[in-house]
Amino acid sequence: MTMERRFEKELEGLKTSLIKMGSVVEENITLAVKALLEDDDALAKQVIAADERVNSLEIEIDNGVIDILALQQPVASDLRLIIAVQKISNDLERIGDHAVNIAESVLSLHETPKQEPLYEIPPMCNIAREMLRNALDGFILLDPQLARTVLQQDDKIDELNRTMTQVVIEEVKSGKQSLETGMQLIRISRNLERVGDLATNIAEDVIFHTQARVVKHHAENGRPLGAQPN
Amino acid sequence: MTMERRFEKELEGLKTSLIKMGSVVEENITLAVKALLEDDDALAKQVIAADERVNSLEIEIDNGVIDILALQQPVASDLRLIIAVQKISNDLERIGDHAVNIAESVLSLHETPKQEPLYEIPPMCNIAREMLRNALDGFILLDPQLARTVLQQDDKIDELNRTMTQVVIEEVKSGKQSLETGMQLIRISRNLERVGDLATNIAEDVIFHTQARVVKHHAENGRPLGAQPN
Repeated sequence: MTMERRFEKELEGLKTSLIKMGSVVEENITLAVKALLEDDDALAKQVIAADERVNSLEIEIDNGVIDILALQQPVASDLRLIIAVQKISNDLERIGDHAVNIAESVLSLHETPKQEPLYEIPPMCNIAREMLRNALDGFILLDPQLARTVLQQDDKIDELNRTMTQVVIEEVKSGKQSLETGMQLIRISRNLERVGDLATNIAEDVIFHTQARVVKHHAENGRPLGAQPN
Repeated sequence: MTMERRFEKELEGLKTSLIKMGSVVEENITLAVKALLEDDDALAKQVIAADERVNSLEIEIDNGVIDILALQQPVASDLRLIIAVQKISNDLERIGDHAVNIAESVLSLHETPKQEPLYEIPPMCNIAREMLRNALDGFILLDPQLARTVLQQDDKIDELNRTMTQVVIEEVKSGKQSLETGMQLIRISRNLERVGDLATNIAEDVIFHTQARVVKHHAENGRPLGAQPN
């Protein structure tokens, strides 16, 4: 196999691991919220256990990045792509941690929350998943436009988090919801909002990377980009 | 200048930027907690503004990493060091975000919290700073023992966060502290606990990296390490 061919193959392998990691993480977020909605502690525990898989995928990708850098000595534009893979994998690992946080909140709830269907949590979960999927698709398809949609969705999820926090505080004050339950619900809402932030990080990396490809011919001194990623 | 000499120089430059970033971040955490203790909104705003500096240092380090990889094509052990720099800079940026979160909580407090000296927040801040400093010193000095002390300190800060959360909940229930203030204090405590987690991440990277140096002569296939960073 030629060096070039081998490089392409290893890079494909990295991307495949990243896509796999993305789907595991998305699934974990979904299941954590499902555990909340269905008051299912066993499912919450399953989400916590599944985070091991996310962590081992991150290590696999880290090692893959080191290998490809060491053996292939790629040029600047490929380097940026490989560093982007590593950064995205780091963000995915953090999203996985938020799924764990949500699952832990589910286990901490000693009573079933009194409002159905749990305020803004289901729409926030849907938006967070869509943001994550668009950010990753933007990376795979090298599509900055798709990545840009993520930035707009982030405002929406921030707004839902604010609204929900206010409503829960009012309900705790009026005695409709207990303090402990209210705090866990606010914590879950904030975790989903943070998933949105991390999907936004990924989208910014995608925009940064795809723009770098466009502008790199104007580069000097091996530094193809301006200072800010967006 | 020889290639080797130039590589050493660029690597020193990266380390210097990382140390600088570490001190800005540590300062921001300290000032955010000072703003809380002294009920100083102007200082809180200053912390929020100072995060720009952290973000631009992260971008500077990212670009430095790309440059050194592109121009010097370092071997496997140096590669690991450079990737460690990039990961640590990412963790420092996240710690900077927690300083901003704390400062935002200070601005959200519409009243002065009723307990002095604010529960476990001052000792948590001290431990978080010490963890951060030990993790970074461990990196600079390539000292896995120093990095290991960080892992022990993390249990302590987790415990303080748990205790403080319980106490604040009790006080809100008994009417000694308002719900809004209680929630912000719990949020601040959780942010400090997360700083501890991130300092632990850095320490684990240091242990991973320094162990890699020790075991690398047993390496095969350009993969000098086992799967787990710890």
